[in-house]
Amino acid sequence: MKRIFSVLLVALASGCATQQGGLAIKDMGSFHVGGREVTLTGLPIKEVVFAAGGVPAKIDPNGVYQVEQMYVQYFVPAVEKGKLPLLMWHGGGLTGVTYETKPDGGEGWVNYFIKQGWTVYNSDAAERGRSGWAMFPEVTKTAPVFLTKENPFERFRIGTGAGSYNKDVAKMKPMPGAQFPLEGYDNFTKQGVPRWTSTDAPTIAAYTALVDKVCPCIVLAHSQGGPFAYQVAQARPDKVKALVLVEPAGIGDAANAAALKNTPNVSIYGDFIDGDSRWPTIRANNVKFQASIRAAGGSPELINLPEIGIKGNSHMMMMDKNSNDIAAVIQKWLEGKGLTK
Amino acid sequence: MKRIFSVLLVALASGCATQQGGLAIKDMGSFHVGGREVTLTGLPIKEVVFAAGGVPAKIDPNGVYQVEQMYVQYFVPAVEKGKLPLLMWHGGGLTGVTYETKPDGGEGWVNYFIKQGWTVYNSDAAERGRSGWAMFPEVTKTAPVFLTKENPFERFRIGTGAGSYNKDVAKMKPMPGAQFPLEGYDNFTKQGVPRWTSTDAPTIAAYTALVDKVCPCIVLAHSQGGPFAYQVAQARPDKVKALVLVEPAGIGDAANAAALKNTPNVSIYGDFIDGDSRWPTIRANNVKFQASIRAAGGSPELINLPEIGIKGNSHMMMMDKNSNDIAAVIQKWLEGKGLTK
Repeated sequence: MKRIFSVLLVALASGCATQQGGLAIKDMGSFHVGGREVTLTGLPIKEVVFAAGGVPAKIDPNGVYQVEQMYVQYFVPAVEKGKLPLLMWHGGGLTGVTYETKPDGGEGWVNYFIKQGWTVYNSDAAERGRSGWAMFPEVTKTAPVFLTKENPFERFRIGTGAGSYNKDVAKMKPMPGAQFPLEGYDNFTKQGVPRWTSTDAPTIAAYTALVDKVCPCIVLAHSQGGPFAYQVAQARPDKVKALVLVEPAGIGDAANAAALKNTPNVSIYGDFIDGDSRWPTIRANNVKFQASIRAAGGSPELINLPEIGIKGNSHMMMMDKNSNDIAAVIQKWLEGKGLTK
Repeated sequence: MKRIFSVLLVALASGCATQQGGLAIKDMGSFHVGGREVTLTGLPIKEVVFAAGGVPAKIDPNGVYQVEQMYVQYFVPAVEKGKLPLLMWHGGGLTGVTYETKPDGGEGWVNYFIKQGWTVYNSDAAERGRSGWAMFPEVTKTAPVFLTKENPFERFRIGTGAGSYNKDVAKMKPMPGAQFPLEGYDNFTKQGVPRWTSTDAPTIAAYTALVDKVCPCIVLAHSQGGPFAYQVAQARPDKVKALVLVEPAGIGDAANAAALKNTPNVSIYGDFIDGDSRWPTIRANNVKFQASIRAAGGSPELINLPEIGIKGNSHMMMMDKNSNDIAAVIQKWLEGKGLTK
């Protein structure tokens, strides 16, 4: 009896964090997938000063470069309750940080879904974040796009549109009942990274390499990640076993909608769409694409959050104050598809 | 008795991963620190095509941008055994991935030190990885430097120097007894990111913001991170309580060496330095800087790994096959300084 108590105390002391409602991760790691080598020739020798006040060194930029690879970090919960790993793909101008701690310090979806027992793979799309980026215009032919601080506020249905952003939180003009934490907006802008608009092909190639490495799996994708997820699922219908699309910014290959007929998939939309200049069209395109999947025998689903009583959500709903409510909708959907143990 | 067994089984089933020699993490998250706003004016309107085949949109690049912030990810072990958090700062042209899973798939130092009970903060220096980067030449005045695939192989004492790299592992010319896993070299090149040579000031500002946020702490820094760690510790001697410098690429402010007199610090060097064209000088500079700290009453330490029987290490010793042996040297040093519970 005494011995059993000792063992029990050791067990309790050594990390049963789920008992306190915390995380319990038993393994984690990272890797890069995909990419290719490119050889540059004919470039002029550069003079580089590596440290302030240092002696310029001649650098020959001609040679072989590694480009277009993708960074992936994974977490394995102590007790796995998902039948398949959950891959999280972020949207344009961002990285996997999208799903980590929220800009207001609240718990993000990576932690939420790990707590639900999912093994999570969170990646940075090619040319974003820890994936690195290639020389332009030598490798990537175009220049990247940078967003001003006000741009996402006015475009992501956080504020009421042009002129709604203000550095002073008290002077911001948020949507009525907006769930985005205004005091976290400044932090959110720190998550932004430059993004290219000519890199869809290498990005899809890298996501496909990831799917080939770690799937069968479920893909949860946001915004620009949505069309990537559709296309990769169309290319690998045997490996992408379910799709959760959070305000997908585009669709898949309409000519090949039938490839998705056996893939459970749901698209989720936040609030304030009807009054927006772009989102009614973007959603309508997806409704049409879903109709093609349905015509081929599939059963795509669509959830408008306000219709199920979840209101005030921006395009960045995984960062909104009620992000856990939306995660719970996703969790319930996954359970309903028999994807949990 | 039966009830106790039930509780015990629940406890064992719910994540006591340390018992299997695995990780046990009870909390993790991420945030950005530091940075500033910069206003750009007078730039021409750009036409951007956001998606292939799309309609060009006019983008006005003038406005306020968030720049020079830094990304930080943290992990809290189930059972904390370190008295202070351990901050890991990477070297030039890389990110915090340096300390994650090794390029050959082996366990990196983030996991190693979490397993030892340290709370770990692993960051991407400003303008690297998930920290994002600013427009150049509009904000950062210079262009970034990109490394060819062979450059680190020949410069980081993995290969025998110029001409030692080959895409075919069998044809590589490694140092005799080299510990770097040659089959992982290709993956290592995928970890590389462009790096600027004119961003020391904003980088140090961001690291200082991190120290002000989460310290007192211990800083473990590699290569370019070394001089950053020295300088931040000199600016915040009350907050940086110990320094572990892994082949620091530079030194601190020699005129202010006395600021480090009460900071336990150790510099660690790998193998093949004497025959290298650069490292004897880089190490000698640090020996001289250490003498200044010693003259002010400090006790800096220096470990040449071959002298304690650990041989074959490259500049990337946290990725070498025997990386755990070096981590153990660091762990023992930290224990010797009374920094563990």
